[in-house]
Amino acid sequence: MRLSDIAKIINCDFVGNDFKVSGLNTLKDAKNTDVSFVANSKYINEIEHSNAGAIIVQSSLMEFVPKSSIALVVDAPYWEIATLSKYFAPPIEDETLPDAIIGEGSKISQKAEIAKGAVIGKNCTIMANVYIGANTVIGDNTILYPSVSVYRDCKIGSDCIIHANSVVGSDGFGFATNKMGEHRKIYQNGNVVVEDNVEIGSCTTIDRAVFGSTHIKFGVRIDNLVQVGHNCVIGEHSVLVAQAGISGSTTMGRNVVMGGQSATAGHLSIAPFTTMAARSGVTKSIKDSGKVYGGFPLVEQKIWLKLQAKISKLLDK
Amino acid sequence: MRLSDIAKIINCDFVGNDFKVSGLNTLKDAKNTDVSFVANSKYINEIEHSNAGAIIVQSSLMEFVPKSSIALVVDAPYWEIATLSKYFAPPIEDETLPDAIIGEGSKISQKAEIAKGAVIGKNCTIMANVYIGANTVIGDNTILYPSVSVYRDCKIGSDCIIHANSVVGSDGFGFATNKMGEHRKIYQNGNVVVEDNVEIGSCTTIDRAVFGSTHIKFGVRIDNLVQVGHNCVIGEHSVLVAQAGISGSTTMGRNVVMGGQSATAGHLSIAPFTTMAARSGVTKSIKDSGKVYGGFPLVEQKIWLKLQAKISKLLDK
Amino acid sequence: MRLSDIAKIINCDFVGNDFKVSGLNTLKDAKNTDVSFVANSKYINEIEHSNAGAIIVQSSLMEFVPKSSIALVVDAPYWEIATLSKYFAPPIEDETLPDAIIGEGSKISQKAEIAKGAVIGKNCTIMANVYIGANTVIGDNTILYPSVSVYRDCKIGSDCIIHANSVVGSDGFGFATNKMGEHRKIYQNGNVVVEDNVEIGSCTTIDRAVFGSTHIKFGVRIDNLVQVGHNCVIGEHSVLVAQAGISGSTTMGRNVVMGGQSATAGHLSIAPFTTMAARSGVTKSIKDSGKVYGGFPLVEQKIWLKLQAKISKLLDK
Repeated sequence: MRLSDIAKIINCDFVGNDFKVSGLNTLKDAKNTDVSFVANSKYINEIEHSNAGAIIVQSSLMEFVPKSSIALVVDAPYWEIATLSKYFAPPIEDETLPDAIIGEGSKISQKAEIAKGAVIGKNCTIMANVYIGANTVIGDNTILYPSVSVYRDCKIGSDCIIHANSVVGSDGFGFATNKMGEHRKIYQNGNVVVEDNVEIGSCTTIDRAVFGSTHIKFGVRIDNLVQVGHNCVIGEHSVLVAQAGISGSTTMGRNVVMGGQSATAGHLSIAPFTTMAARSGVTKSIKDSGKVYGGFPLVEQKIWLKLQAKISKLLDK
Repeated sequence: MRLSDIAKIINCDFVGNDFKVSGLNTLKDAKNTDVSFVANSKYINEIEHSNAGAIIVQSSLMEFVPKSSIALVVDAPYWEIATLSKYFAPPIEDETLPDAIIGEGSKISQKAEIAKGAVIGKNCTIMANVYIGANTVIGDNTILYPSVSVYRDCKIGSDCIIHANSVVGSDGFGFATNKMGEHRKIYQNGNVVVEDNVEIGSCTTIDRAVFGSTHIKFGVRIDNLVQVGHNCVIGEHSVLVAQAGISGSTTMGRNVVMGGQSATAGHLSIAPFTTMAARSGVTKSIKDSGKVYGGFPLVEQKIWLKLQAKISKLLDK
Repeated sequence: MRLSDIAKIINCDFVGNDFKVSGLNTLKDAKNTDVSFVANSKYINEIEHSNAGAIIVQSSLMEFVPKSSIALVVDAPYWEIATLSKYFAPPIEDETLPDAIIGEGSKISQKAEIAKGAVIGKNCTIMANVYIGANTVIGDNTILYPSVSVYRDCKIGSDCIIHANSVVGSDGFGFATNKMGEHRKIYQNGNVVVEDNVEIGSCTTIDRAVFGSTHIKFGVRIDNLVQVGHNCVIGEHSVLVAQAGISGSTTMGRNVVMGGQSATAGHLSIAPFTTMAARSGVTKSIKDSGKVYGGFPLVEQKIWLKLQAKISKLLDK
């Protein structure tokens, strides 16, 4: 698809040379063959430094688009990126891909489905009713228990265990909303990367990135019924206890512990060696490493305990 | 089954003409060939206006049964409706139904199971390990990702996406409990109706109604690991973020937003354009539309934020 | 495996007679052919009364090992039990086991997978995409809805219903962590026992025990998206509402009710007939039976309601 095609789809004109568009991406990660967008004036700083070949903007932000980029001016950039995202979504499955490659010693249940283009390493155990999507790559010695579903284009490392009925790579919760309150899907064209030696519990969901990757690093331990939103980064050896929920684009350092039913808001950064007690609700980034927090809104756990003691004294008054 | 059979099963006499019973239903929705029940004196008003052919009641409420209905007097009406519900439950699958009908252009994985009586529209994608129950109807262009399970008698619209390992139409959490603390299942003989253009995340559960339908309206967006209880109505374009839980028989207007890990009690009514912040706990109906709430117990979000500020000042005292 | 092999694996010497080790177990439950361990000085009392044939200890606790046991002295007993646990893990599936036995009248979907050694009772319904692991035993009249996964060695009673996409017997969340913050899996070599007349909702997870059994007793009702940790005991007729989370090794008496999104910490004991309101967070054992609790930290529900009223008055000051 060429830039002129894109301009036609989103119904705008542009000034500059037409080019073949390789994809959609964020301002920060876009290459000069990508189209990016800015939907919010708080990203003004990122516009100027973007290498994107073209940027979809409102007219009010048009002046910040660098000379190296072509401005595509529309009323609702986020809505239009949703419109365009569909055109860049690969097919769910693709019969033209080569047959899946299965490594030596791997046991694949006849009731598992391995899509074309997938590559499975050595000595893996892929159990009944597992689904592995197109082009997904799995390392050596990894075990996928029954009914695990891994969507296309994901990477799962070696020595991993994923327990039954978990989902890796389902679409992140992304959509644009217009003034009428209607939603339009933003196709999630990124993937999930799970590094080596990760264990994931049952009925846990890890969403694929909208662009780039959701990233589960080496040695992470994830319990059952945990939600990891799109574009999160979970640091090495971090521990996510049952029913924890990590909102999109949150990044954790190594050895972060999220207690049971704890949660983070999106777009946060959590320092390494931070511990969140069960039921914590994290709404701001955490900069100092090695502390223990609790409560919602979040405070240091020792303060939360004091606070609860004071609150309970209220009753005596 | 005739009314005399029902009287025999629940061990009571009745005065009036026997008739063929078409089903069990609520006081409000029962027709004159249905049997209804009243288990709680707060529904007295509904008894008088019920069109039910017969009503199961305690002796203390017998006088409120209208002349058009036959009273079936028992000690524990709720327990007896549980007893009867089993007799009205259709078989899980039914080999006597016609073969499933698959619309033109639909791709059905050979590892999917489509029960008899199901009807699938045009250009659908039904992936590996999906289950579609008896008589369930699916519109056009709908995508069911791997290991989605849809129980019998449900309806899913066109242009829907249901992500991997979600469940539509599992039994609502309904049972009667006797004085010994023992439970008896109330068979959930209703269904789930999902309208067009709905997207549902992975590992989400939407329970079928006990009578009638659980209803997900046009354009709704549901994230991962969300619970929607039986007989809920989710209004058009509403958004349920990950790990939210909606208890049974709660009705939402259009464009309601439930934040991550938020929840509602059952039998509530939520005004359109209401937003509940993450972790909100809604215990009362919300009448004014367009407001933003937070906390548990729920207050307006700006009040919750003030309250938290005041609470944290407690520590300084 | 003999004790001398174990000593070699964990790199320690021992004094006493070598013997054939039958398994790993807790101090309390170990027989004289088992190896046990103590990783925490609070279990000192249990060391003296243990019947274990050998006990892995730190040197500081060596003196408490009874004369009937052999002490295996290491720096990090919990880490070493993790190391050893792998050697006692049975294979996920075992082709040498006898063919599964299916009782009369049971309907098994051709898309279900029944592993070798499994035994299924009479008149069961085992639907599409179900997985039943090696040596798992299922009673009579039990229904497993689509994509239920039951791991090996579990027992499920008669007259049970397990709804779609739930998981019984996945590994408990057990691992040892070394000073570098690295984790090592503790293989969960116990099982899950579900007694008769239990109903389990959809996308619910019940973890297998590390040693012994996670135990769901007669008549329990579990809703959707509930987490039951390893080694829990859920008493007869207890009710776990949607999205509740029960941490490992918590024991409940009969007729306990856990409201929606409520949770318990691990290693607690909850008295019979206790009710926890929705969103309760239980951090201490409950000794008095028959009370109603709410809040986090937990208080009696009537106190929680008062407290919330007082807190909201804060705003008026």
